[in-house]
Amino acid sequence: MLADVELAKAYRLLNHGPTVLVSSAAGGRRNVMAAAWAMPLDFDPPKVLVVIDKSTYSRELIEQSGEFILNIPCRAQAAQVVQVGSETGRDDDKFAASGLAALPAQRVAAPRVAGCIAYLECKVVPEPHNQQRYDLFIGEVVAAQADDAVFRAGHWHFEDADASQRSLHYIAGGAFFATGEAFNVA
Amino acid sequence: MLADVELAKAYRLLNHGPTVLVSSAAGGRRNVMAAAWAMPLDFDPPKVLVVIDKSTYSRELIEQSGEFILNIPCRAQAAQVVQVGSETGRDDDKFAASGLAALPAQRVAAPRVAGCIAYLECKVVPEPHNQQRYDLFIGEVVAAQADDAVFRAGHWHFEDADASQRSLHYIAGGAFFATGEAFNVA
Repeated sequence: MLADVELAKAYRLLNHGPTVLVSSAAGGRRNVMAAAWAMPLDFDPPKVLVVIDKSTYSRELIEQSGEFILNIPCRAQAAQVVQVGSETGRDDDKFAASGLAALPAQRVAAPRVAGCIAYLECKVVPEPHNQQRYDLFIGEVVAAQADDAVFRAGHWHFEDADASQRSLHYIAGGAFFATGEAFNVA
Repeated sequence: MLADVELAKAYRLLNHGPTVLVSSAAGGRRNVMAAAWAMPLDFDPPKVLVVIDKSTYSRELIEQSGEFILNIPCRAQAAQVVQVGSETGRDDDKFAASGLAALPAQRVAAPRVAGCIAYLECKVVPEPHNQQRYDLFIGEVVAAQADDAVFRAGHWHFEDADASQRSLHYIAGGAFFATGEAFNVA
């Protein structure tokens, strides 16, 4: 079940470096792409960074709308992560093509990707130089939710859930790691 | 044994989102700090991003020298990662205090942290606005090496090595994940 995540703790959804799906919408069109290059930038108000290449259709939609969602997919969705990371949504709707379902979000018009384990809804903090020179976007997180099967009380609890619900860490050429063993240093 | 990593593939050392140790040196002083907020920014020439807070001693050394190293620590070093992430090196040498040894690097004056599984030696790409407003630094990777026990032929191979050599993913409050199971999507 999805539960709200306190905004000051939203960075914890992304702190371990999972691969994300970036969803966006503008002018009645929508798209979803994979991104390994996303991370927190600040705690409170929470900000994130994500690299969105100039060649992508998502880039157009994000620049038009000033919004995007970082969806955190799980191992059950790995094949779809690769698919939406390698095809363009310019000609065909990538949700339909990949079998990923779109769900309404809380604070932005971009759709959420159904079945993901967490969502960070973001408004672009305009930084034209970063966007043009480095394809680098800053987003302020305006809403965050996570599946309470795996994230509760401000911490991930993958150890209690099925392995198919673990987050993903992409390398290259279809090679991933799942998020592994949890441990604590006192 | 450390082996050179082709610069065009250096992003793969960081693509799965591991926590890093940032080492730096200037004017005969040196320091090391932990950072969960580091990621690739570009492939070739490879660039990286890292967030370095204004309050840190490392920030002074990096701004003076224009150089830093992203060292990728392993599970055997988790307690030291927490230690150098919570103490300052302004008064005492943090290498000595933590028991981490410093080794010479290939292309920069900053020291490498002994026992890490990979090293990305970086020169700062000056972006004063990002540095001042967001504590965000861009580095161009000028040399990269990895321990061939865990990274060979452009890919991580944690499955062949001891679990103590896996990379780390920090959340908060001493809680980590180890890098987990490797799998491929065709």
